Amino acid sequence: MEKNMEKPYVAGMDIGGTNTIFGIVNARGEILGSSAIKTRDYEKIEDYIEAICSNLNELIVSLDCVGKIRGMGVGAPNGNYYRGTIEQAPNLRWKGIIPLAQMLQDKLGFPVALTNDANAAAIGEMTYGVAKGMKHFIMITLGTGVGSGIVVDGKLVYGKDGFAGELGHVIVRENGRPCGCGRKGCLEAYCSATGIARTAKEILETTDKPSLLRDIPREALTSKDLYDAAVKGDAVALEIFKQTGELLGKAFANFVVFSSPEAIILFGGLTKAGDYIFKPIKEAMEANMLNIFKGKTKLLVSGMKDTDAAVLGASALGWEA
Amino acid sequence: MEKNMEKPYVAGMDIGGTNTIFGIVNARGEILGSSAIKTRDYEKIEDYIEAICSNLNELIVSLDCVGKIRGMGVGAPNGNYYRGTIEQAPNLRWKGIIPLAQMLQDKLGFPVALTNDANAAAIGEMTYGVAKGMKHFIMITLGTGVGSGIVVDGKLVYGKDGFAGELGHVIVRENGRPCGCGRKGCLEAYCSATGIARTAKEILETTDKPSLLRDIPREALTSKDLYDAAVKGDAVALEIFKQTGELLGKAFANFVVFSSPEAIILFGGLTKAGDYIFKPIKEAMEANMLNIFKGKTKLLVSGMKDTDAAVLGASALGWEA
Repeated sequence: MEKNMEKPYVAGMDIGGTNTIFGIVNARGEILGSSAIKTRDYEKIEDYIEAICSNLNELIVSLDCVGKIRGMGVGAPNGNYYRGTIEQAPNLRWKGIIPLAQMLQDKLGFPVALTNDANAAAIGEMTYGVAKGMKHFIMITLGTGVGSGIVVDGKLVYGKDGFAGELGHVIVRENGRPCGCGRKGCLEAYCSATGIARTAKEILETTDKPSLLRDIPREALTSKDLYDAAVKGDAVALEIFKQTGELLGKAFANFVVFSSPEAIILFGGLTKAGDYIFKPIKEAMEANMLNIFKGKTKLLVSGMKDTDAAVLGASALGWEA
Repeated sequence: MEKNMEKPYVAGMDIGGTNTIFGIVNARGEILGSSAIKTRDYEKIEDYIEAICSNLNELIVSLDCVGKIRGMGVGAPNGNYYRGTIEQAPNLRWKGIIPLAQMLQDKLGFPVALTNDANAAAIGEMTYGVAKGMKHFIMITLGTGVGSGIVVDGKLVYGKDGFAGELGHVIVRENGRPCGCGRKGCLEAYCSATGIARTAKEILETTDKPSLLRDIPREALTSKDLYDAAVKGDAVALEIFKQTGELLGKAFANFVVFSSPEAIILFGGLTKAGDYIFKPIKEAMEANMLNIFKGKTKLLVSGMKDTDAAVLGASALGWEA
């Protein structure tokens, strides 16, 4: 507790394929200040670490937080919590196994913990968001990919190797669409941003239904476009939400029998479509739910702001670091 | 520890639809003595409790264990660990919610804990079987139904209401076979004893392949019959094992992304078919496994004897009661 008073802040960092964002956070989950560098600018990992540390130290000085940082949490693609490593991340320049937490810790002088981005989001939700006080929930991140963080008894499920909770890669369609992972029919192949764009393409190309979406270049199509079209009653946009929601809802009903969570919490661009996506998810989830679980699992939207969520989520891990 | 020395034994009880078996067990997992009553003989739950207690007390006296029982563990269909209740069990005579643990405890004078049968098997495996020392595994019981007990960080996953781990009711086939739970396409509808018999019926009735299984009345068909036929090269028996194994293997690959377990442990009659069932399971599991998990999850058979497993598994819960 004394230590807590002496060092009342944590640092949080989110490593994305494009940007690396970091910030200093207090115990109430307020970001005191933040900064960013371009992830792709650094060919050598050592230069990247150097850039993070010098930027972060500047930030710490400017916020008058020198010696007051308790620890740092990092959310990273293919992040391994047990080992503090990034392992074989397809979207980063550094190949193999990168001992990122150790490298940062050596230079920064405070403890650094690392986990994958979806787990960081789950920890953030538990610390600052709608999962406060929940012991059992499943976080689903709907973005470029579909990620998940599973909380059981108030703790992240990491499994034997730190890689548990890859629910985006549950196979939901036998011999279905090819997935980036090399297999077929994964949830991610249908419900990620690219998966949804692909559903749009399939419907637009195999039917001649009129649709506002026909005026938008396929590769530029976003959840926002779908939402705007749905608001105007566009049948194709509504059909895309229906198909995507049904797949998610059925998958969620299967997830519930595993850990009987209090809630499934959704995060990401797709959640902005509101009832257009929630209604089909909820309906399919309840229709496919085992009797003893019916009506018992909440479907919630993340309580964290998009822009802050990644840093806040990661920073929450800093308290345990 | 002192208490442990004073009370070095536990009681274990398995409640089945037909028999209720109980025994006294020492810390090495040896059953010192056991007894049984007929579950269906008691219309009123009070009479059933009375019969258990008088039989169990006799056993305790005969084994010279009076005052030496630390606690009792009970495995029961639809058993709820949090509440110590049996809830809406379809195969028992007593309807509604039965506060069984409390009723027993009041009469026996030592603590009683209760869980469902598959969870009891998982605890038994962790205490006395092949999962000794494992922190992460999934127990799958293949019997009249398909049950499961999921262990994460060395603890059973119970979820918010005590009903987590119903992996027999993961839906594996859209609009598939009707399941006893009222839905369609559950794993249990294919891989339980009745599910397998149904697969046999389907193959025998829709093809005219010669088979030794044609001489056995359909409703009497057991895993043993299938095994005996397979040994003799019976193509239909081999096909049944192949189909069942494939479904199990694919389902297991999906389970692994959830909790990244060290092993999936199988228990029940079907495991006696040896490689006839293990080979197709293993092949389908690896073929459908997400890359980062490939070759990392063991497929094991329970280390406990069938006849003792239920009582031993339940008794292990008695140490925590």
